[in-house]
Amino acid sequence: MKVAILGATGLVGQRFVQLLNDHPWFKISSLTGSERTVGLRYGQAVSWRMESKLNEGIAEQAVQLSDPKEVDADVVFSALPADQAIETEEAFARAGYAVVSNASAHRMAPDVPLMNPEANFSHLKLIEEQRHTRNWDGALVTNPNCTTAVLSLSLKPICDKYGVKSVVMSSMQATSGAGYPGVPSLDIIDNVIPFIREEEEKVQHETKKILGSLGQPAEFNVSASCHRVPVIDGHTEAVFVQTVKPAKPEQVAECLARFTAEPQALKLPSAPERPIVVRSEQDRPQPRFDRNEGSGMSIVVGRVRKDPVFDGVKYVALGHNTIRGAAGCAVLIAESMKSQGYI
Amino acid sequence: MKVAILGATGLVGQRFVQLLNDHPWFKISSLTGSERTVGLRYGQAVSWRMESKLNEGIAEQAVQLSDPKEVDADVVFSALPADQAIETEEAFARAGYAVVSNASAHRMAPDVPLMNPEANFSHLKLIEEQRHTRNWDGALVTNPNCTTAVLSLSLKPICDKYGVKSVVMSSMQATSGAGYPGVPSLDIIDNVIPFIREEEEKVQHETKKILGSLGQPAEFNVSASCHRVPVIDGHTEAVFVQTVKPAKPEQVAECLARFTAEPQALKLPSAPERPIVVRSEQDRPQPRFDRNEGSGMSIVVGRVRKDPVFDGVKYVALGHNTIRGAAGCAVLIAESMKSQGYI
Amino acid sequence: MKVAILGATGLVGQRFVQLLNDHPWFKISSLTGSERTVGLRYGQAVSWRMESKLNEGIAEQAVQLSDPKEVDADVVFSALPADQAIETEEAFARAGYAVVSNASAHRMAPDVPLMNPEANFSHLKLIEEQRHTRNWDGALVTNPNCTTAVLSLSLKPICDKYGVKSVVMSSMQATSGAGYPGVPSLDIIDNVIPFIREEEEKVQHETKKILGSLGQPAEFNVSASCHRVPVIDGHTEAVFVQTVKPAKPEQVAECLARFTAEPQALKLPSAPERPIVVRSEQDRPQPRFDRNEGSGMSIVVGRVRKDPVFDGVKYVALGHNTIRGAAGCAVLIAESMKSQGYI
Amino acid sequence: MKVAILGATGLVGQRFVQLLNDHPWFKISSLTGSERTVGLRYGQAVSWRMESKLNEGIAEQAVQLSDPKEVDADVVFSALPADQAIETEEAFARAGYAVVSNASAHRMAPDVPLMNPEANFSHLKLIEEQRHTRNWDGALVTNPNCTTAVLSLSLKPICDKYGVKSVVMSSMQATSGAGYPGVPSLDIIDNVIPFIREEEEKVQHETKKILGSLGQPAEFNVSASCHRVPVIDGHTEAVFVQTVKPAKPEQVAECLARFTAEPQALKLPSAPERPIVVRSEQDRPQPRFDRNEGSGMSIVVGRVRKDPVFDGVKYVALGHNTIRGAAGCAVLIAESMKSQGYI
Repeated sequence: MKVAILGATGLVGQRFVQLLNDHPWFKISSLTGSERTVGLRYGQAVSWRMESKLNEGIAEQAVQLSDPKEVDADVVFSALPADQAIETEEAFARAGYAVVSNASAHRMAPDVPLMNPEANFSHLKLIEEQRHTRNWDGALVTNPNCTTAVLSLSLKPICDKYGVKSVVMSSMQATSGAGYPGVPSLDIIDNVIPFIREEEEKVQHETKKILGSLGQPAEFNVSASCHRVPVIDGHTEAVFVQTVKPAKPEQVAECLARFTAEPQALKLPSAPERPIVVRSEQDRPQPRFDRNEGSGMSIVVGRVRKDPVFDGVKYVALGHNTIRGAAGCAVLIAESMKSQGYI
Repeated sequence: MKVAILGATGLVGQRFVQLLNDHPWFKISSLTGSERTVGLRYGQAVSWRMESKLNEGIAEQAVQLSDPKEVDADVVFSALPADQAIETEEAFARAGYAVVSNASAHRMAPDVPLMNPEANFSHLKLIEEQRHTRNWDGALVTNPNCTTAVLSLSLKPICDKYGVKSVVMSSMQATSGAGYPGVPSLDIIDNVIPFIREEEEKVQHETKKILGSLGQPAEFNVSASCHRVPVIDGHTEAVFVQTVKPAKPEQVAECLARFTAEPQALKLPSAPERPIVVRSEQDRPQPRFDRNEGSGMSIVVGRVRKDPVFDGVKYVALGHNTIRGAAGCAVLIAESMKSQGYI
Repeated sequence: MKVAILGATGLVGQRFVQLLNDHPWFKISSLTGSERTVGLRYGQAVSWRMESKLNEGIAEQAVQLSDPKEVDADVVFSALPADQAIETEEAFARAGYAVVSNASAHRMAPDVPLMNPEANFSHLKLIEEQRHTRNWDGALVTNPNCTTAVLSLSLKPICDKYGVKSVVMSSMQATSGAGYPGVPSLDIIDNVIPFIREEEEKVQHETKKILGSLGQPAEFNVSASCHRVPVIDGHTEAVFVQTVKPAKPEQVAECLARFTAEPQALKLPSAPERPIVVRSEQDRPQPRFDRNEGSGMSIVVGRVRKDPVFDGVKYVALGHNTIRGAAGCAVLIAESMKSQGYI
Repeated sequence: MKVAILGATGLVGQRFVQLLNDHPWFKISSLTGSERTVGLRYGQAVSWRMESKLNEGIAEQAVQLSDPKEVDADVVFSALPADQAIETEEAFARAGYAVVSNASAHRMAPDVPLMNPEANFSHLKLIEEQRHTRNWDGALVTNPNCTTAVLSLSLKPICDKYGVKSVVMSSMQATSGAGYPGVPSLDIIDNVIPFIREEEEKVQHETKKILGSLGQPAEFNVSASCHRVPVIDGHTEAVFVQTVKPAKPEQVAECLARFTAEPQALKLPSAPERPIVVRSEQDRPQPRFDRNEGSGMSIVVGRVRKDPVFDGVKYVALGHNTIRGAAGCAVLIAESMKSQGYI
């Protein structure tokens, strides 16, 4: 299957290129970029920031315009900036493409699935309503904000088994989450920046959409405080959860560790064996050592312990922000769509 | 007045030396260290890690044993490790010294004041009970854990005006909090360590003692999650507060900004003009830019905003962990004791 | 005396604002910026990155165009980008202003003094030739590239006493040298970038101009290798020197430590008491601890030792790149010019 | 073949464990540690700092004493501290073991090969002399200091083709070079430390031994200045070379890029296909992106350019300090020894 990557030169675009290299189902056929880069070879247009090397064949591909007429693909991954995403992604879906987007533009639209596949696989069927309402053959599906991807996956098994009444989450986010060039070194060396534009609102709304039923957000509230720290990759989150039913830390740890869902059952290529890896050491997870767990698709949870305020649990969750929190999640969504016949 | 510093070669000990240089009331007369360093000049014994230079006169002083008979002082500041602090500090108090300690050993003892002067100045009178119970002429007073010092100061005006029902706090702590050599660079570059031994317990208990009345901890619960980040100095704390009375963010910001207490009224030398500086920029406080506010004795609060879980407020607080959070607080305690005739 | 700062919102511009706050001779009368910022208050236009606070009066000043007709000043400090500096600085000088520039544009022009005041105070008289040749009443004087400022100052006493035949220099430069936003955090955390555009050429040429006589560059060669490291402020330089006369390390250390020049003799306000501070500890200088020596105007030299290749000396020099290496040097130049009647 | 690792819990010891996991020829049979750790499972005894996970089988092995009678192995890799290495390594060699050591203790002994296999494969035959002189059946071979390993490999092809007269080298070294816990974060965040004990002497002497003939050091001199920077892994070196015959930068770049030696011809398991990878981008090599080239066994050279002082070349070389610069080099030495029948 041929896939296009829209906005392929940015940091999330590069992660798509890296993850789709040697993918068993998908082959990159088109890479699009800004007008400035159109016509350049991808290798010239990109400031490659991935640790592994850029595939030489990909480096030779010419950068194209983000235009449905120019692109030849079965699936379109979008790493466009939010403002460009609005119209461009709709144009692709209207032209019949299956679009999986990392942009925030359409995430909260009622007829657009906001998917974290292990957390809400069943939301895929919203595509049918979308096709009917919007009168198009394509599809437009989004992955969550990077912080939400980690949080919502960690909450899913707790929701299912104990119910959730309230969630407080404080994040320590990697600088790669701001793209490239992104966070200036003068702002972040020996420093913490306690603000990421619109991030807290995204976490508070998207988590409820993902963990809710179709058309009905989850009933609990989420309060987020988001901070940038001097880390390259990997978002760390301190999570405090008030459960509906009483839940002991060791029970919660066990239900997280055992959790699997449809992507595991279907053995989708990007589905990690364990979506949630639980560490028992008292000082884990840590971004430098745990961010590549499950090739960056697993989240790692540690320090599950009693919370004295909510009489619930608190824990620390960590996930790779540009893999599980962006491109990797989008690829898993596309695999999920294919498995259910939506592509 | 002559002052001794116990454990003067460690990082907090060095901060005492720095802060007491040119102090209008106190003059360093004794510096103590481990047996290995006794007899050395202080300048030889210490790995000086302060940004300002070591005073040359101090550098020439000989390091002494932490023994009440060796020391000549009116006030004794203790930067001893917790295990040595237990007996040594009691020995000094028993020998008639006024001991102000940064060690955790005695903080939770019912007859030992745990002082953050702007938050609980009135607790000083516990010294009278202590002298009676312990049958000594000296005094033993402690400052809070560094994280608690910042948190409790930020909560004080809210407690007074709106009442507090619950507090959730997630910290991003500087590596200087672990002393020297402390955190290995291999552990913290490009990383977060989501664990600091006993820190969460300290925050949860000490905050309630400070904000309670004498002999009665405050009634609210605190839940803390503590993390180390690659920052030299300055602890950043994301705080979520459930208030008793409804409180709007702008009201809370104003009551924090206006707050002053006895140390300001008494114009104590180390009392900052504003104990709490409120910043209105959306991306402050930041450790590199705000940690030296009020010579490190002010905390800086920003992002005061509505909290959707508690229907309360959330905010970010920052303070210098070895000044307000350790040596500076202890010096302010000693000044407070002197102003009330306890020294 | 009234002074204008051209390009006042950039990082070097901010350093000018900070250094000229409370200057005994100079008072900021004009601040200029890009067209986008003209008319804004300076406080709005700038992303203030200095550790000390922005003066409130300065924050209220309106940003102006970099146009000689708009500006009211006796001295003009230029922190313009090199491409804008070429014409703008000449226009100011032609209009009669004394221009002291941090831009590289005119540094190598034969009739423009390239001044590091302690190293080549006598070059000031080139202004007379410049006025004659260019037929203007103003003056155009430049400070060196940041790396050159440190290197040339450290070499000056060695040149004078022992003569220099060859210099090899390898730098470890702070990210503030690249301006703001400058070096992306994704490029420099846990990394070294072994390239800074045109820096090596600048060091190799400017050093010879500074340490040469008027119209005649010094006869030795300089070979530089320039690297960026994860440090906020302070350039560290490993210097290897082949001398003409034999020089023992302890002799070189002493001649560096004793060195003073005209700015010290004239007690110019920005002249540090010791232009070169020599440290005897084996592990100094270090940027975090030594960059503010002499209010950032002194360089710190350590590890003066024998060099087995040149049979000369090698040492490590460190200086504050935006103070001695930029704005501070320019202010000292203006003070030097005033002292000699050129302003 | 069974191999033992002496000092297996340290950082280089861990790297041995990681590299020997799944090695085609060698299987770990013994792990030794300090007395404190003897009898513990390796997984308990070690603070595992490698990015990949500790093999579970290895984690279960019991830590043994570094005693020839306790250990069962054909080859012994030593990651002992220098002071313990002196006697222990000799005892193992005397007991008939082939010892390959990363310790500095025996490197400069005239009858001990100091091997960087691609640079001086022929030095292996010194083992015969050693066996004769020392009257033992074992063997004692050492790998170079980490900085020397990178430098000497980069110089080898230049020596061969153009001859070398002088070398000046300035290093920017990773903190992992100091072991664990090693460099405190308080010393290195936002900082450079311009001193590493005995490092410059090692580089200056070892390079000449490696690139000399048997019993005769190379005739050129090396001058080194060594510095620690905030980087986890990967030493960066600025190298300035005076050649005997004139050498253009593009010629040198080509001879480096084409270089292979006996380990490549013999297809030894740890020999990288290209010992020296030459990058043509102007801003490479960089530790974060290049340290794992050739699984950490290749060095990466860039910026080969003319040097104006020596009329020679200068370049930047980078290598992984605990792989090519320590454990990986030792494993390649053992493979070389086996290939020549010395094991």
